[in-house]
Amino acid sequence: MSGDYSFDIVVVGAGIIGVATAYYLQRNNPSKTILLLDRLPAAGQANTAMSAAAVRNMFASSTNQLLTDTSIKYYQHIQEEIGHDLLFERCGYLWLLSDSQFNNVSIQNWMKRMEESNIHYRIYDKKQLKEMIPGLNVDFEGDDEAELMNLQQVDFGLFGGDCGVLDSTRLVEYYLQEFKKLSPVKPRFGISVEKLLLEANPKLDVPGEPFVWQKKKVNGVITNKGSIRAETVVLATGAWTNKLLDPIGMDGRTKAKKRHIFVLHAEDKSGLRDLLDTKGFCDLNTIPFTILPSAGVYFRPQLQERGFWIGCADKLGRCFNYIQTEDYEHPESTYYENSIYPVLVKYFPSFEGARPVGSWAGGYSYSPDAIPFVYKENGILVLDGASGSGIMKADAMARIANALYRGEAEAELYGGKKVPADMLSQNERKVEVESVII
Amino acid sequence: MSGDYSFDIVVVGAGIIGVATAYYLQRNNPSKTILLLDRLPAAGQANTAMSAAAVRNMFASSTNQLLTDTSIKYYQHIQEEIGHDLLFERCGYLWLLSDSQFNNVSIQNWMKRMEESNIHYRIYDKKQLKEMIPGLNVDFEGDDEAELMNLQQVDFGLFGGDCGVLDSTRLVEYYLQEFKKLSPVKPRFGISVEKLLLEANPKLDVPGEPFVWQKKKVNGVITNKGSIRAETVVLATGAWTNKLLDPIGMDGRTKAKKRHIFVLHAEDKSGLRDLLDTKGFCDLNTIPFTILPSAGVYFRPQLQERGFWIGCADKLGRCFNYIQTEDYEHPESTYYENSIYPVLVKYFPSFEGARPVGSWAGGYSYSPDAIPFVYKENGILVLDGASGSGIMKADAMARIANALYRGEAEAELYGGKKVPADMLSQNERKVEVESVII
Repeated sequence: MSGDYSFDIVVVGAGIIGVATAYYLQRNNPSKTILLLDRLPAAGQANTAMSAAAVRNMFASSTNQLLTDTSIKYYQHIQEEIGHDLLFERCGYLWLLSDSQFNNVSIQNWMKRMEESNIHYRIYDKKQLKEMIPGLNVDFEGDDEAELMNLQQVDFGLFGGDCGVLDSTRLVEYYLQEFKKLSPVKPRFGISVEKLLLEANPKLDVPGEPFVWQKKKVNGVITNKGSIRAETVVLATGAWTNKLLDPIGMDGRTKAKKRHIFVLHAEDKSGLRDLLDTKGFCDLNTIPFTILPSAGVYFRPQLQERGFWIGCADKLGRCFNYIQTEDYEHPESTYYENSIYPVLVKYFPSFEGARPVGSWAGGYSYSPDAIPFVYKENGILVLDGASGSGIMKADAMARIANALYRGEAEAELYGGKKVPADMLSQNERKVEVESVII
Repeated sequence: MSGDYSFDIVVVGAGIIGVATAYYLQRNNPSKTILLLDRLPAAGQANTAMSAAAVRNMFASSTNQLLTDTSIKYYQHIQEEIGHDLLFERCGYLWLLSDSQFNNVSIQNWMKRMEESNIHYRIYDKKQLKEMIPGLNVDFEGDDEAELMNLQQVDFGLFGGDCGVLDSTRLVEYYLQEFKKLSPVKPRFGISVEKLLLEANPKLDVPGEPFVWQKKKVNGVITNKGSIRAETVVLATGAWTNKLLDPIGMDGRTKAKKRHIFVLHAEDKSGLRDLLDTKGFCDLNTIPFTILPSAGVYFRPQLQERGFWIGCADKLGRCFNYIQTEDYEHPESTYYENSIYPVLVKYFPSFEGARPVGSWAGGYSYSPDAIPFVYKENGILVLDGASGSGIMKADAMARIANALYRGEAEAELYGGKKVPADMLSQNERKVEVESVII
């Protein structure tokens, strides 16, 4: 480490991507000093904690298939072989689709691509679905309201049994604990990074630096508790990334959007209990993570709480926010009432009258192709744009970031598969555009 | 026109792209009512007026070559055949390059691609440049300051004689006047668009609309003087576009950056007079639009004022701004003193002591591939991301926008060349990434 720097690396953001990156960097570069920072009092408490924490390998692009499949297998390894319980439950993912959706070229391509990549899935028809989930309404024939709401009927179910849900806090804990075992530097919490420290390289110590004609590099971060100098700054800041990159003129190419989760309990209503305890899909005898055919509404079973987490991937009409604001901490109750509930109750009438017992909101960072960015430039290593699937890609992204840090041409993902280290970069991007976004 | 709408089309932004689009839309759709709006008291007074108003066909991507070559030929046609004087002066463009820059693969590819596209250029060597521009300093041998400033010496000049400068106000006037001849609707100025009017389609007239499960469409704009309903909204808003698209959740994929012009008079100094009156490059006997090898500094001759306009395409360290602010109206004087002047005076010592007599700043809207966006979605037709070359691409972009509006598969550019109407769209983009950005 040069005498100018207090640390070799500062990792900004102790969400799932930040802790995984800190861990792989420390494991592979044992002599480097790595400071992990977060603005909140503990790791994984921001948008990682706000996610639905579902994991799936059912993507259409080979890029996302690879990132998720290897990450999920590593999480399985953590739980089953290392013995750190992540509450990883393979409840599966179930897409409910109308006939026209099912026969659409993009869905047909998706299935073809999963077959090519040996990703297991199966198809249920309407009759089978009706038998397995008696409370599911598959047909809106004669229902004017449903027509007004543009609701598609259910003709098919696309089910992936290798997908599931996990506890994101436990996953964060695992990487953090392994990082702490290796790192001589204690992570610091409650420190908010306000700016990147862009400096002339070399500095002339003249007021007004850096000037246009000087070479420049990010040499650390300016926080609410002072400056921290580091040779490499890792940004694992998700929906906050533009706030740090824009001021130095780097285009992160991502946009942040607010996403909600509403918590409903199943115990008070027999219909919801039956739904939660749906048999036949998986050994857990529970309903899979289920995506409705319309309006982007989905739910996941929550077995510890005996309930459901309900979300919605709304598109047009849900604003992009420049930076995260306090607004993100306030879920919109009318959003459940007016936008989600009416859809949910049409497909699953047993939700009739059910009201959330809790709710929260967080920020997703979307990339234009729904594939994450991992790149190193100007002294910064950026991991961003996981597009709502950061938990299920974190392990692979962190391994790729480590290869970029080390200047290696290839990164080795869990299971031994090697990929070009620059495959997720902005300038040498080698990815397929993803079409299956929730 | 449906009874719900006051106009068929509202064009937001009467900069060069807005007026050109309004003109082609009206010419090709004579029965449609088109309202052209601008927040300023007249057309072309915002960022169009702030540009260096230089035009070049010397790009590396066939996409930009085509957009600029056909637009520039149309401007020539306006001036020479229609007889509307644009003060279009073919002073040429001159890139000054060091040996290592000249031999870099990206510059060599650029030249190869220009040859393939029949774009005329010639190469001058150091000796020729020195003879033609006696005031040019080509060599910094032994100059420690120049080394500290990372200045590249001058070994080659790449000159394009079909490029030049024009008066952007006159170009805006031309399209505006032609539009006004055809349009029954008078353009309105001093009207600021604050929001896009995103509505449920159909509307239910229930509070809280649009809900997630409703189809949606932009049905007009909300301005500081009330709402204006139109079936199609054209956004020709450049650096302001994100301010309108973000709130409805559309990712414009562009970023805005502040750019300066500093005005210097040549008459007071014989060295600058000689530089302005440089012979041998073009019939006008003036120095070409000249790009220095280092720091992004460039200047254009201004023959009416007998002076120079000086600018700088700074990259890392110049912030992206979320929206345009009053800040854009305030050029930074220290920027000239500290960043531009030291570079300028090294290459052209006759600028020694010369100080700006005027300056201004405006916003450029950059796309990630430095190619513009033109797309139609959700009732909006967006033209954005010209990346600092909107004036030289405006005619082609407007013709493409018209084809999209009409639902035609191809757009015909000036000279008869046909291109896919969706070539500049986000989702069906068919472009080459541009590498020669100033």
